[in-house]
Order: sequence, then C-alpha cells, then structure tokens
Amino acid sequence: MRNRLSELTATVQDVSVVQLGILGCGTVGAELLALLDRQGTGIQARTGLEFAVAGVAVRDVGKSRPVALADGVLTDDARSLVARPDVDVVVELIGGVEPARSLVLEALQAGKPVVTANKELLAAVGAELFSAADAAGVDLVFEAAVAGGIPLVRPLRESLAGEDVRRVMGIVNGTTNYMLTRMTEEGASYADALAEAQALGYAESDPSADVEGSDAAAKAAIIASIAFGTEVVAEDVHCEGITELTPIDIAFASRLGYVVKLLAIVERSIDGGVAQVAARVHPAMVPETHPLASVRESFNAVFVEGAAVGELMFYGRGAGGGPTASAVLGDVIDAASNLRRGSHASIGTLTRVPIRSIDDLVSEYYINLEVADRPGVLAQVADVFGRNAVSIRSMEQEGLGEGARLIFITHLACERDVRRTLSRLGELDVVRSVGSVIRVAGEDDAAGG
Amino acid sequence: MRNRLSELTATVQDVSVVQLGILGCGTVGAELLALLDRQGTGIQARTGLEFAVAGVAVRDVGKSRPVALADGVLTDDARSLVARPDVDVVVELIGGVEPARSLVLEALQAGKPVVTANKELLAAVGAELFSAADAAGVDLVFEAAVAGGIPLVRPLRESLAGEDVRRVMGIVNGTTNYMLTRMTEEGASYADALAEAQALGYAESDPSADVEGSDAAAKAAIIASIAFGTEVVAEDVHCEGITELTPIDIAFASRLGYVVKLLAIVERSIDGGVAQVAARVHPAMVPETHPLASVRESFNAVFVEGAAVGELMFYGRGAGGGPTASAVLGDVIDAASNLRRGSHASIGTLTRVPIRSIDDLVSEYYINLEVADRPGVLAQVADVFGRNAVSIRSMEQEGLGEGARLIFITHLACERDVRRTLSRLGELDVVRSVGSVIRVAGEDDAAGG
Repeated sequence: MRNRLSELTATVQDVSVVQLGILGCGTVGAELLALLDRQGTGIQARTGLEFAVAGVAVRDVGKSRPVALADGVLTDDARSLVARPDVDVVVELIGGVEPARSLVLEALQAGKPVVTANKELLAAVGAELFSAADAAGVDLVFEAAVAGGIPLVRPLRESLAGEDVRRVMGIVNGTTNYMLTRMTEEGASYADALAEAQALGYAESDPSADVEGSDAAAKAAIIASIAFGTEVVAEDVHCEGITELTPIDIAFASRLGYVVKLLAIVERSIDGGVAQVAARVHPAMVPETHPLASVRESFNAVFVEGAAVGELMFYGRGAGGGPTASAVLGDVIDAASNLRRGSHASIGTLTRVPIRSIDDLVSEYYINLEVADRPGVLAQVADVFGRNAVSIRSMEQEGLGEGARLIFITHLACERDVRRTLSRLGELDVVRSVGSVIRVAGEDDAAGG
Repeated sequence: MRNRLSELTATVQDVSVVQLGILGCGTVGAELLALLDRQGTGIQARTGLEFAVAGVAVRDVGKSRPVALADGVLTDDARSLVARPDVDVVVELIGGVEPARSLVLEALQAGKPVVTANKELLAAVGAELFSAADAAGVDLVFEAAVAGGIPLVRPLRESLAGEDVRRVMGIVNGTTNYMLTRMTEEGASYADALAEAQALGYAESDPSADVEGSDAAAKAAIIASIAFGTEVVAEDVHCEGITELTPIDIAFASRLGYVVKLLAIVERSIDGGVAQVAARVHPAMVPETHPLASVRESFNAVFVEGAAVGELMFYGRGAGGGPTASAVLGDVIDAASNLRRGSHASIGTLTRVPIRSIDDLVSEYYINLEVADRPGVLAQVADVFGRNAVSIRSMEQEGLGEGARLIFITHLACERDVRRTLSRLGELDVVRSVGSVIRVAGEDDAAGG
C-alpha cells in the first residue's frame, strides 16, 4: 500500500503514521472522522502523513453515533487515552473549561501537540496553555476556536507577524447574524427571527450565549490575544447582546445608510506611551458600503486594520460540523508536520496590558427616545445633550402624539458623557423612555478612540 | 541592548540576528526597509529575531532613493550579494523572469531561504523553483506574489491542507476593479475609467497587462498551483480582458441583478477518474448578493469553495507598497523562524494534470446582439440558438430601429456550442453585429462544469 502510493505520487518522502487521540465525538468529531476517511489518501499523497485514529474518548461509549469506528477505538477514559504512548497528537473537541484544561495540560506536558476548537477554554486560560505548550516545546493550535472554518488565527499569527495591527472587528456569531439578516431584510421581529434560527438549528433552545453576546465575547478575547500578543480573557470584554434591538431601530439604521450587526471589536492604542487594549461586543451600525455590511445569513467575517497592510477581511462559515472539522484537520496536519520535523510554532508569552474601560470609548451614537409630542420638547432634550458635551450630528422626529420618537445621531462623543446624557434624559418629564442606543462602527475614526 | 530587551519582554529566548540580502529597491523594497525600521523592535520582542540589511542590490547605485541606507549597503552586483556568506535570507523584489530566476536558484542552491513577490516568475517557472527549494531543504515563500497584502498563499497551503478545494474565483487586479467600479457606479465609459485609473496611479501608461488580463492570468496560474498542487503556468490560462466592455453591458447586468467583475477562476474536476484543472480570466456577471459583488474600488478578493469548509473569502489590498511589503515581511519572519529551528515548509512536488479547454466550459452566458428592427428577427435568431443546443433563459429587446438590440441570458450551455451559435448569428442578415458575450459566475453550478 505504501509502496504503491509513493509510486503513484512520485513524491520522494517516507510515509509517517500519526496516531490521533480524539477527545469528544459530537458534530465536529464525527465530521473530522468522516473527513479523515475521505481525504486521507489525498493528504498522504501531498504530505506523506498517514493519520490513524488511536482512540476516541466519549462520555457514553454505548450511545449510537453517525460514524463507524473499529472495535476498541471508543473509550470513556480520556485521561488514559491522552497518556497512551502510541498517541502522537491530541485533538480536544470536548468544549468548556474542565476537564478540557486538565487534559490539554497533561497532553502538552507529555510532549504531545494539541489541536483544540474550544473557545471557552482559550478565552479563560489561554495564556496558561500557551506557556505550557512553549515550556514543553510542542504545538497548541486552535484555528477552529475562532470563526470556525475561516483561516484567521494562522494569518494573524504568521502572515501578519510583521504588521502593526490596530483594530479587528468581527461578525463572529452566525446565529445572531442570521437573526439580524431576517430583521433587516424582512422586517422580522426579534422573537420571529429567533424562532426561525431555532427551527433551522442555528440557535439552541437556550439561545442566551448567542443573543447576549457571551459567545462573541469569548472569541473577542482570543482574537485580541493573538492580534496583539496580550492576555485578554472573556471577562475583560464589555458585552452587550441583541436582545433589546427592535425592527424600528433596524429600519432607521437602513434609512440612514447603515446595517445593524453584532460586532466583536478589539483595538490597541497607545496612551501616554503605554499600550492599552479595548475589547467589546455590542450591536453596531455599519455603513452600507463597508465590507462587513454585506455579510449576510449565518456567515461570519473578520475585518482587520493594520498600519501597512490597510484593510483585510476574512469571510466564511463560523460554525457547523464541516467547516469546523476542516479547520481542525488543517491544524492536525500542521501539528503533525511540525512534530515530524521536530519543530513547533509558538504564540510566545502573552504580556498583560491595561484594558481600556468602555467609559473611555469615543464613538458616534444612535439614540432613540420616546417623547411627549408637544412644543419645546426638542429644546429641552437638546439642552441636556449640550450640557453633557454630546454634540448632535442629525435628528429626526418619527410619529406624532403618543408614539412620537426623536432619533439622534451624535458626532464623536465619549461613552461616559453619553451615559450621563442618557441618565439625565431619563429624568425629563417629556422623555417617556430611552430606547436603543447603538454605536456606529466602521467609519473612519468613528469606532476608534 | 539585547539584555535589556529580554528583561523587558520576559520571553526566554536568545536573539538571533538575521542578515537580509534584498534584490531590488522599488516601491515595495523601500516600504520593506521602512517597515523593518519601524517594526523591528516589536518583531524582536515577539519573535527573538533581529533583522539586519546586509545589502540591497539595484541596477543603478547612483539613483536617489526615498530611504536612507548605510554606506556600502547598496550594490549593483546582485549575484555576489546572494553568494555572500553573511546573507541568511534572500528577498527577491526585481520582478520578471530573468535574472530573477537565476538569482533565486543560486540562493536556494546555496541553502538560503528566498522570499519573493514576483508573480511573473512563479507563473512561468514556479514548479522548477519549488523543486529546487525542496532539494535544498529551504523555504521559498511568496505570499506577496498573489493578491498583495491579502494572506492567501499560507491559508491555502496550510489552513486548507485537509480541504478538498473545488474552485477559487478572485478579483486579483485592482486597476480593472477600480475601472469597473467607476463604470458601474457612475456609468463612466471605458476610456474615462482608464484615464481616471491612470491619473490616480493605479494604471500604468501602458495598461495592457491589467486591462487585457495577463496580470490576472499569472496570478490565476499561481493560485491553481497552490490550491490544487498541480503545475499550471500562465500560458495554460484562457485570458480575456475588459477592453470590449461597454457601459451598456454593465447597465444591463445591473438591471438583471448582476455586477460585472474581471474574475480569475480556477477549478478542479474529475472526468472519468482523471483530475482536470481549468484556469481562466474573463469578465463575468456576478449576482449582486454574492460576496465578490461588493468588492469595490481597487480592492482585491479571493473566493474559495471547498467540500467541507464551504465558502471562504479573503479581502484586502492586492497591490501598493505598504500592503505588499507587509506580506513580504510576514514571509521574511516566517522564513527566518524556520531557518533558526532548522525547519522549512514545502509546497511539495507539483503534479501535471490535463488542462481543460475553455471549449468544454459549461456556463450561463449574457449575449448582446445589434439587430435589424423588423418582424421575424427574433424567430430567426432563436432558431439559430435552438439548432446549436443553446437554450435561452430570458430575452429582452432594447431600443428601436437602427440601434435595436436583443439581450439574451442563456441557460447552462457549453462554450463550444455558444461559439458556434455566435458564428452562425454573425452570418444572419438581420444581425448587424454580435456585441459583448459575458459569462455568468457565482451562481450554483453556473460557473462550474
């Protein structure tokens, strides 16, 4: 078999057999096994690497699975699988922090490269794991942990190694992007959009990690860590979801030339000679001509701004078994190639720099107020804006009588001042309620600060 | 200095000094030197690599340059620079096939990694150079040769190593994309759009490499080589430029829901168990909702379709000193890191597979005929389509009398049949002239075949 292959391909290299220990066998694990099966011969021809599955650790070995595995491959003892001397590379697809963290550390300490798709793990204890990998001199690779099938981690780590990356803005949650697309293109309500996403399997029955932004926040933390080489954890990320958005806000945004997207934004700035990092997730109004505006349905995209390279965008499927397994397999091949030549990539030691407070953000803001429809209202409202150093770029009134609304877009303003303004506005008799507040992003200098 | 640095960054690695031999000092070379200057300290902190410029080879050492270089760094003897024992990594920024080819081969044979941004070179003799790099056991890296600053080569080579890539479609020429954007958004004529591109410095005084598609064809050859691991050279690429496009065609496309883009398309298919590769450059009608449709101005983007990963797109600046130098610097860091750890990446041996003829393409076609405006014309024209096995999806008549036109969109048809149809149509009395013929791309199964 091996002789025949080397004759066929005319590549002059020995075939190395690489034994994989796979932890977890959900959607991604099953797809990975199917891909290894389908692509194995081609990968062997191109790389000289032959992958074999030494074991697959699952919680319940008795559960029926969509993939056929040889007898003895399934085990419920993940720890022993990691420790087995014949396992060369460990693939962690369990998710969550523990026991994934302990198993990954044990693998690294045993000198085994680890491939993981686990964003919660990296967003919580990434720095610890990167150090452990460096100390052991082995790879820890995680392309699938951010933006699923989209090559992003490797380009940021390697292709942009010489680049001064200033800001990264991403649509990194497909569920909410799908919902926002329905709300934008069909005027669907939040509830209907969510029900549709659930019916299609994009949203879980408990959708909170998606719609409240915590899934995107974990990815923002990882993106900031690799883009800036600094330790950023999920708790460092200011996080707002899409649960308060209404079709009214989205329709207004559209009339003003914007599309509403849930963005993960990370920025690096220098303040008085000291580097600072900002990381936040929130709905944002993106100009219609911005590349992120045309990212529809459940697609993800990550927009990178660098001093020399200018603007880059990486677009694709951020989730799903096939795309995620494709990214995992790319990492498995990379880790195995490095292992064979006794080499490994390193993310280096993450430095810890101050995290900039959301209070210091400078942005333009969309503000939607429900007001009493009587003379003098605008003067009172405008007075509050002015006293709090928030300058208004445009205003329009929508509706009359009970349902009257004032919609403002501010000039660049400081978040702290906007918060104070909103609080004062809420105290005015003529303001019935302060509705959505949406930051503008993607215009020059608008989302920066 | 070195002690202080290691204290500052807390990374426990020795600093390795890497001496660069840079061939060529045009826009990209000057930007690279500026970037090394600006980013050097940061790169050293992150990677432990300190870059020094051993020499810069130019044709005329007396010419004034925008960068300051130490005495003795400039030389007009490229060959000696490549051979100098203190030069660790060679950066080839000369362009063209010779003397670049000989210099790159000499560097590789001397065991020196080479970074190149030279698309003509790779599209002509890439396979020879990849073999030489493999034989010498050193890196030949070329991220900047395709799509400038956009990370594309590394993702294709590494992130998608386990992926069955079926098709890649790219907007890889910024000049023509700028021109098409002006023609689309402002109805500019071809001549006005070209004049504007020239005034902005996007187009050369002789714009033929851009507008006739040969620049894009060289990039298509390289993309096909790395995406499919097969040898494809520039001459294998069927090439049509944008010189025949009129604002009328573009306005029609827009009315039908399409945007006209100059695309480089490479596809891999299996015909009777034998792999085939198709590579072509031509104007194409892209549906308005396709991600490539929103790529405006001088931006580039490359759209990749894989069996597991689905659709990916990489977007950014395809040309210009800053973006190109950023990509070159990423490659320089990569090559130097590999050199330090005694490792190298390999593109493997390119296989040679049959190139599918454009005659075998199956696509939908937009066809614009100038006709006599009298009864029975449509019947005669439709009869020719029918007899030649080309089925019509939609037709509309534009104008009356002398300037009457019939615009057809076909169903999927074979290029060979369409060519025969056009030839027969040209023989009809009632057809005054056959105008533009534009293929439709980016719809499911439309550009495939």
